Amino acid sequence: MSELRKDPITRRWVIISTERAGRPNNYIKSEEVIENFCPFDYGNENTTPSEILSFRRPNTRPNTSGWWVRVVPNKFPALYKDAELKKSGHGMYDKITGFGYHEVIIETPEHNTSFSKMSDKQINEVIWAYLKRFVEIKKDKKVKYIQIFKNHGKEAGASLVHPHSQIIATPIVPYNILEELNGAENYYKFKDRCIYCDIIEQEIMEKDRVIQKTENFIAFEPYAARFPYETWILPLKHDSNFESIERDPNIIFELSSILHTVFKKFDKTLGNPPFNMVVHTAPFIEGIEKIFHWHIEIIPRLTNLAGFEWGTGFYINSVLPEKAAEDLRREEIL
Amino acid sequence: MSELRKDPITRRWVIISTERAGRPNNYIKSEEVIENFCPFDYGNENTTPSEILSFRRPNTRPNTSGWWVRVVPNKFPALYKDAELKKSGHGMYDKITGFGYHEVIIETPEHNTSFSKMSDKQINEVIWAYLKRFVEIKKDKKVKYIQIFKNHGKEAGASLVHPHSQIIATPIVPYNILEELNGAENYYKFKDRCIYCDIIEQEIMEKDRVIQKTENFIAFEPYAARFPYETWILPLKHDSNFESIERDPNIIFELSSILHTVFKKFDKTLGNPPFNMVVHTAPFIEGIEKIFHWHIEIIPRLTNLAGFEWGTGFYINSVLPEKAAEDLRREEIL
Repeated sequence: MSELRKDPITRRWVIISTERAGRPNNYIKSEEVIENFCPFDYGNENTTPSEILSFRRPNTRPNTSGWWVRVVPNKFPALYKDAELKKSGHGMYDKITGFGYHEVIIETPEHNTSFSKMSDKQINEVIWAYLKRFVEIKKDKKVKYIQIFKNHGKEAGASLVHPHSQIIATPIVPYNILEELNGAENYYKFKDRCIYCDIIEQEIMEKDRVIQKTENFIAFEPYAARFPYETWILPLKHDSNFESIERDPNIIFELSSILHTVFKKFDKTLGNPPFNMVVHTAPFIEGIEKIFHWHIEIIPRLTNLAGFEWGTGFYINSVLPEKAAEDLRREEIL
Repeated sequence: MSELRKDPITRRWVIISTERAGRPNNYIKSEEVIENFCPFDYGNENTTPSEILSFRRPNTRPNTSGWWVRVVPNKFPALYKDAELKKSGHGMYDKITGFGYHEVIIETPEHNTSFSKMSDKQINEVIWAYLKRFVEIKKDKKVKYIQIFKNHGKEAGASLVHPHSQIIATPIVPYNILEELNGAENYYKFKDRCIYCDIIEQEIMEKDRVIQKTENFIAFEPYAARFPYETWILPLKHDSNFESIERDPNIIFELSSILHTVFKKFDKTLGNPPFNMVVHTAPFIEGIEKIFHWHIEIIPRLTNLAGFEWGTGFYINSVLPEKAAEDLRREEIL
């Protein structure tokens, strides 16, 4: 069982998940990519926990082949949906039991592929799986936030090469989301406008950090990018909730397509880089619909963070965002 | 020349340092450890920028052999002391010219050693160099914060194996320092006490996260450690400023000794792990002497951060801090 602990100074929560621990150094091994056996391949469905959701051919049984997207509970979960949600003190410290959800979205039966090589249509199916699970997990009123994310490559923390995403639902609003929400709220108080909408406005006006703009989305390098080739994708029309796109299959397909384009451009420019992708959406708090603006952040993991970054939270980015955008724009996509 | 840019949402500053950039992928190469030639070895003093400070044998000339600690400007600085400090807007965004200091402390002429293998006395000399440079740079009133840090091992972002530390002085107070300061300030308003002093109190009372306590310092695993074996060292007596220890050579030696002990224990338990070490001290703001408490944070870099951590700021730590402390306490140091 895991436990949430809060740093009393920064008020940042940490998940202590000792299931993966043991002798010192053991957890290093668990980070290594296992190439020999893949629990996400066709025929190995019985080696994962039972599936929660799958998109599969008619007349195929759950937990057998025939699926094209499959969602299963994480075998080594950081949080547990059956855990009682209990908050308590420990002297001056705070803790919460390890309640939450931790699921894996197996994006395709194909072992050796990636978002850049999949079709728009397959990515579209993956996004549908994100949405279905998001909407379902959100019904649990103990959940305060749902994080959809993807690790690609060992340097990005992926422990399996088979393309997959993850969902972790937490009983508190995570630090970075609160940080964005607070920033957006202060701006809203000052300007009576969404800060993300204003950013989009300036990016469209300036052009030089934009990678692609479609009818409903924009992909660009943020002005103060922390990492070389860090890329954000935002819906052009103000919307706080990622899951609201479920209403419109065309919008979902358009999102799949712009995502696909960005990853193809990454491959061309950076050569299949390791990356993390995260969806930032409004936490489950009343009255923030006008303030927050859902978006996707993609971070190629090209450099190791060092002591200065850890010490100060000050990132050193060696590539000008305008230069990164130019590199990515230039790449022709077949 | 570099540039500071501010994320308008989170108000986090980033240093855009394009000196190291060029063609895509070039910056990856620069992260690779260069083993063949070492600019920090005896005899290669002329391959670094001219030394700012050195502790050396009498009758030896600057920028020749004979030193035991040597401080030089970073050859690829992130910030420049000769840059004009100029703040400006860029539409809704903020930027500052790349003013600051970036220096390298070469800790020893010995190429293949580390804090764990050096003597207390040599570490003591390194800390003296930190202090001398800190006090000197602080005289520049344009500097708002001085970050002393050390990267050990490629995974921790070290580009050279020869033992060295770095100092970066910034024209604004970095994000993480503001975050700690704000947390400490809120606590002070509420309790009329320093939060770090209260943490020390509880750690001494509970004992199970403590690694070592000496007359003036305590080394322990923080309650909400973000990383396995994350270790903090704090002075027991309240003090906001790292540089204040300059008054008392015995305290400096005691700090050198507890640092040495912690690194020897790391080596025994984790086998010469890559790590980052950062000194957190009060930024140059009036009236925070009672609120802030200087300390050292040491982070072994054993795991790769993944999308969940990037997305949420929520760290998953697989080793219970009490277990990590027990492992480290158990190691006999010869």
